[in-house]
Amino acid sequence: MVNRITAVRATDVRFPTSRHLDGSDAMNPTPDYSAAYVVLETNGPNNGHGMTFTIGRGNEICVAAINALAPLVVGREVDGILDDMGAFHAALTQDHQLRWVGPEKGVIHLAGAAVLNAAWDLYAKTMGQPVWRLLVDMNPDEIVRLVDWTYLQDALDPVEAAERLRESRAGREARIAEMETNGYPAYTTSVGWLGYSDQKMRNLARTAVDQGWRHFKMKVGVNIADDARRAAILRDAIGPERKLMMDANQVWGVNEAIRNMEELARFDPWFIEEPTSPDDILGHGAIARAIAPVRVATGEHCHNAVMFKQFLQADAMAVCQIDACRLASINEVVAVLLMAEKFKVPVCPHAGGVGLCEYVQHLAIFDYVAVSGSLTDRVLEYVDHLHEHFLDPVVVRNGRYMPPESPGYSIEMHPKSIARHRFPDGAEWSEEHP
Amino acid sequence: MVNRITAVRATDVRFPTSRHLDGSDAMNPTPDYSAAYVVLETNGPNNGHGMTFTIGRGNEICVAAINALAPLVVGREVDGILDDMGAFHAALTQDHQLRWVGPEKGVIHLAGAAVLNAAWDLYAKTMGQPVWRLLVDMNPDEIVRLVDWTYLQDALDPVEAAERLRESRAGREARIAEMETNGYPAYTTSVGWLGYSDQKMRNLARTAVDQGWRHFKMKVGVNIADDARRAAILRDAIGPERKLMMDANQVWGVNEAIRNMEELARFDPWFIEEPTSPDDILGHGAIARAIAPVRVATGEHCHNAVMFKQFLQADAMAVCQIDACRLASINEVVAVLLMAEKFKVPVCPHAGGVGLCEYVQHLAIFDYVAVSGSLTDRVLEYVDHLHEHFLDPVVVRNGRYMPPESPGYSIEMHPKSIARHRFPDGAEWSEEHP
Repeated sequence: MVNRITAVRATDVRFPTSRHLDGSDAMNPTPDYSAAYVVLETNGPNNGHGMTFTIGRGNEICVAAINALAPLVVGREVDGILDDMGAFHAALTQDHQLRWVGPEKGVIHLAGAAVLNAAWDLYAKTMGQPVWRLLVDMNPDEIVRLVDWTYLQDALDPVEAAERLRESRAGREARIAEMETNGYPAYTTSVGWLGYSDQKMRNLARTAVDQGWRHFKMKVGVNIADDARRAAILRDAIGPERKLMMDANQVWGVNEAIRNMEELARFDPWFIEEPTSPDDILGHGAIARAIAPVRVATGEHCHNAVMFKQFLQADAMAVCQIDACRLASINEVVAVLLMAEKFKVPVCPHAGGVGLCEYVQHLAIFDYVAVSGSLTDRVLEYVDHLHEHFLDPVVVRNGRYMPPESPGYSIEMHPKSIARHRFPDGAEWSEEHP
Repeated sequence: MVNRITAVRATDVRFPTSRHLDGSDAMNPTPDYSAAYVVLETNGPNNGHGMTFTIGRGNEICVAAINALAPLVVGREVDGILDDMGAFHAALTQDHQLRWVGPEKGVIHLAGAAVLNAAWDLYAKTMGQPVWRLLVDMNPDEIVRLVDWTYLQDALDPVEAAERLRESRAGREARIAEMETNGYPAYTTSVGWLGYSDQKMRNLARTAVDQGWRHFKMKVGVNIADDARRAAILRDAIGPERKLMMDANQVWGVNEAIRNMEELARFDPWFIEEPTSPDDILGHGAIARAIAPVRVATGEHCHNAVMFKQFLQADAMAVCQIDACRLASINEVVAVLLMAEKFKVPVCPHAGGVGLCEYVQHLAIFDYVAVSGSLTDRVLEYVDHLHEHFLDPVVVRNGRYMPPESPGYSIEMHPKSIARHRFPDGAEWSEEHP
């Protein structure tokens, strides 16, 4: 019997993180970390699981968009999808009527990411491999064919991309062995959420230092006096050698960002993340020139490869923070990894939220083994909550992500977690809470 | 009794335009022009009507997003909204959880535009004026307060904007009188849809010349041989003096656009519209430099004021084609009009579709009377279908839009049109069609 996609099942799953201000920042004071969760059901041995990440309200719109994409998927042969993931990516992002409500941005793109990531999970489970292993075993031409090059060739064309990938193959086995032994270096965002008290932040930072962390990210952007006081506490707790990063979550204008970072430069930040609108390529470029040597990091809200292309072309992004499910899955992430390598910008993926750490460990390891070949200035975000809901949660040891071993994309949730957190009828949302 | 918003009623309305290939282009071969239509119901004498435009599938996602915005609106006092439209705009675009699925782009932004435009309709009906008149009667400080300046001040700040508006007041009454007598100049896109035969295109062009049209837009982008043949037919039909515009609807890459326009330059196009990805500011800039004096036009898919700011800063847009319901309503349109005036770029709004002509006539007249004070290089798109569904349809005389006279934003549809075209249960969709 031919193995086909028999159903696309989307679920609105929300975790009530706002009750404890985990994840709070200047733009997002009370997020409820959520997943528009999708299962590609087949009549074969494996289903594909995927999700896109949101912070609460609006998750139901992503579910509606996944349902709008379902007719493009249901009935397709699984082999046909897995044999040409580039074509499947195009089918989901280029339906001309659905494209109008993007194009390649916002809700429809988030939904496409969820469905495409589920296909990648299905692919890896079918091959009996974790996604990172599936990717590093592809040859350069196969990798290049994953990408939609339509709008990217003025920066990098597929022929050059394949050549660069061939050059990167030297040392590949040694890098795989290194990952399997030591893991991929991480940084922690768990110490500096904006809703935490000074004392809580100080204690968390000291504990994290004791655990061996070398990079610490704090939220800034409510007002400069508070930002400076909290930065002083953290710098004091971590000492002068460890790296302090700051994240403004888009709250400043361009000139305001420059003024504020001139003030905060005395705490020696490694980078400022999202200093202004995530759409403002030229603005990020102006900030970067004004505040050097402090770097500008952005990307978690950068909505497609065309935007990343320009951030790289304009020297507006010194740290490239791809998001695994705002970009339209691995296909679009690969495009950005290839461009970042050409422009010699380190990729430090966005994680945290729910499921993002599970996703991006695969991407960072692939980047190291097959694309960049470097760990210099590369650290993968880590936040220590909500991992218990996944069948194959991340393993972080000595501040490093250890490569996943189970087949798939590590994103499948426990059925009882989904049932409990389903919005609005799961027990977590329908029961009374004090 | 206090007058409040009592309900937000959203409807999925679709017109089966794909049956006759009206509106067909290289990116969008079979669009079904659609409206995510919203009524703000009040317990007072007026309701507000608004919509955002889509081309079929995905319209239901916009309806879901309008429903997600409804809790931010229902129960509000009407006077509170109308007294501070800037605050209402911020309330609908800055809810931090909903913002995540944009921010300020895609489905959530389209939905915000529909709701905010309905509030503008309610505002104008409450004042007993058409929207354009309401706007031109505002003083400069009131106009400036409509705008969210957070991310725009590196290009234009509110103090400078108010000064410029004060300077533009000279000659205001004469320009109003001129509009009421002669109307606002238009161009026609009805002659050159990609799905039309050569003969149909030739006949339509000759008829349009006889009707007095001076500007003609054709679709390009399927292949260069067809593009050149069709351009030759149109240039022949309209003669050397009238203006020919070309629209590629985003199908080319940057280098491909440059090559193709070098080939098509011999037909003396006034501009090429959407030569590549609507997100590619730097790409549009490169194309503009390469193909001058042919101009680059874009904007109908430019998703927010931050993007327009950069297109203007980068000299990447010589013709600014705002869309009335992709931008978050008049509030965001005003921001773009003010920036375009500063950068001396003419605004030629995007219209056609369904409802867009009805919307943008108000914006173009406001721009002329209160902002730019100029008609040079300014023409308003016109497409001659679907107007019969509106209570107050556009009036075009001698190739010019005559100013609307009825109170409101001209966007209210006949109840029987809505009922007939409601998707999927209206008669137009549930009955058999040959």
